[in-house]
Amino acid sequence: MTHQSPRLYLFPVPLAEGAPADVLPARNLELLKQIRYFAVENLRSARRFLRAVSHDIVIDELSLVELNEHTDPADVAAMLAPMQEGHDMGVISEAGCPAVADPGADLVAVAQRRGYEVVPLVGPSSILMSLMGSGFNGQSFTFLGYLPVEAGRRNAMLREIERDIRRNRRTQIFIETPYRNNRLIDELVRALPGDMLLCVASDITGPRQSIVTAPLSRWAKGGYDYSKIPTIFLLYS
Amino acid sequence: MTHQSPRLYLFPVPLAEGAPADVLPARNLELLKQIRYFAVENLRSARRFLRAVSHDIVIDELSLVELNEHTDPADVAAMLAPMQEGHDMGVISEAGCPAVADPGADLVAVAQRRGYEVVPLVGPSSILMSLMGSGFNGQSFTFLGYLPVEAGRRNAMLREIERDIRRNRRTQIFIETPYRNNRLIDELVRALPGDMLLCVASDITGPRQSIVTAPLSRWAKGGYDYSKIPTIFLLYS
Repeated sequence: MTHQSPRLYLFPVPLAEGAPADVLPARNLELLKQIRYFAVENLRSARRFLRAVSHDIVIDELSLVELNEHTDPADVAAMLAPMQEGHDMGVISEAGCPAVADPGADLVAVAQRRGYEVVPLVGPSSILMSLMGSGFNGQSFTFLGYLPVEAGRRNAMLREIERDIRRNRRTQIFIETPYRNNRLIDELVRALPGDMLLCVASDITGPRQSIVTAPLSRWAKGGYDYSKIPTIFLLYS
Repeated sequence: MTHQSPRLYLFPVPLAEGAPADVLPARNLELLKQIRYFAVENLRSARRFLRAVSHDIVIDELSLVELNEHTDPADVAAMLAPMQEGHDMGVISEAGCPAVADPGADLVAVAQRRGYEVVPLVGPSSILMSLMGSGFNGQSFTFLGYLPVEAGRRNAMLREIERDIRRNRRTQIFIETPYRNNRLIDELVRALPGDMLLCVASDITGPRQSIVTAPLSRWAKGGYDYSKIPTIFLLYS
């Protein structure tokens, strides 16, 4: 496709194994077949995704460049070269939505500076879906990414989380390295009031999906194991 | 469908006119055909949505109860009665994702307390899609809902927004009553530094979709009109 004003399409990718059509609208799959230039978080997983989308896509005829945490920021702007020639481009992350808790925002920022049209597409987001399923306030919320690792700063952050919930009624959302999930719950149980509500949302859209909201006093009793499962945490009271 | 443990499905709804399949995965459309009990934000728009999903859905055979800002909180729990009898239920908002900047969270909270399985589905969210398209930080962000209307509190909030961007590198997302969109941009231009970046995302997924990021100094020059168009605002620097 060649327009007067080329477009940068942001393609979400499934979070779990399974048919792309279960979590992506048909329009995304149609658009994917029409684009030849992609910036992708990981070459191997992007090729696997494109093969799952349609056998009509001839991967070898596509131009894929890698864009991730190893990319030199100085190289990002040059990735948009095909758009200067009038071609549409697509961004594909490893899982979930490009540019949200994932690389891609830098590339979008360059596209915005150059006045290109940016077109985000619908797809699965563990942040949004866990918030929907938590029962917590969806009128006001904060996504914090990872909590700080260093003990002092981590504790200060937990105090700030507690204050922001009480003062602003704002849902707090954060993630953890999967092998530390159980330890994080244990830590929240010890650091925060027992009547505060914790929602643990794991394997979103996957076969073992589970979204459980309960007071920290109930999490204190154990009986869970989220070790190594992609999980997102939400606090509210 | 009747399970041992009934499910509460959260069905996103298109944000703009057009075919549901453009913004909703095929799985959502299949599930909608199998559910008979719904809590909906607005009866008329829910019926219109279900008709657009499939002619196979016989609306008159469904049980729809209204759940919105006029609902007495004391009546929310009773809406889950079909689940007590083992039936799955669905939640449908007027546009976008149930329970996120939309009613539904109270009902989900009751379902969580009763231990029912809650299943959020994929769909369009102007919050998430505008964040993707803005080029701003997607590793840390806050959705504030509407800014306060009263001048003093509104000004204090703008100061807090400025501080949170500088200190925590956190993208700030908020909405405005559509007829006041232009006035809000004018206000941001006057209250915040000219080099701060404002993204204005309007008519997301609609025919006039536009997502534009520029410094406030450029917004100061005018040349826009978002009056009465559903629009979302993002700040970052």
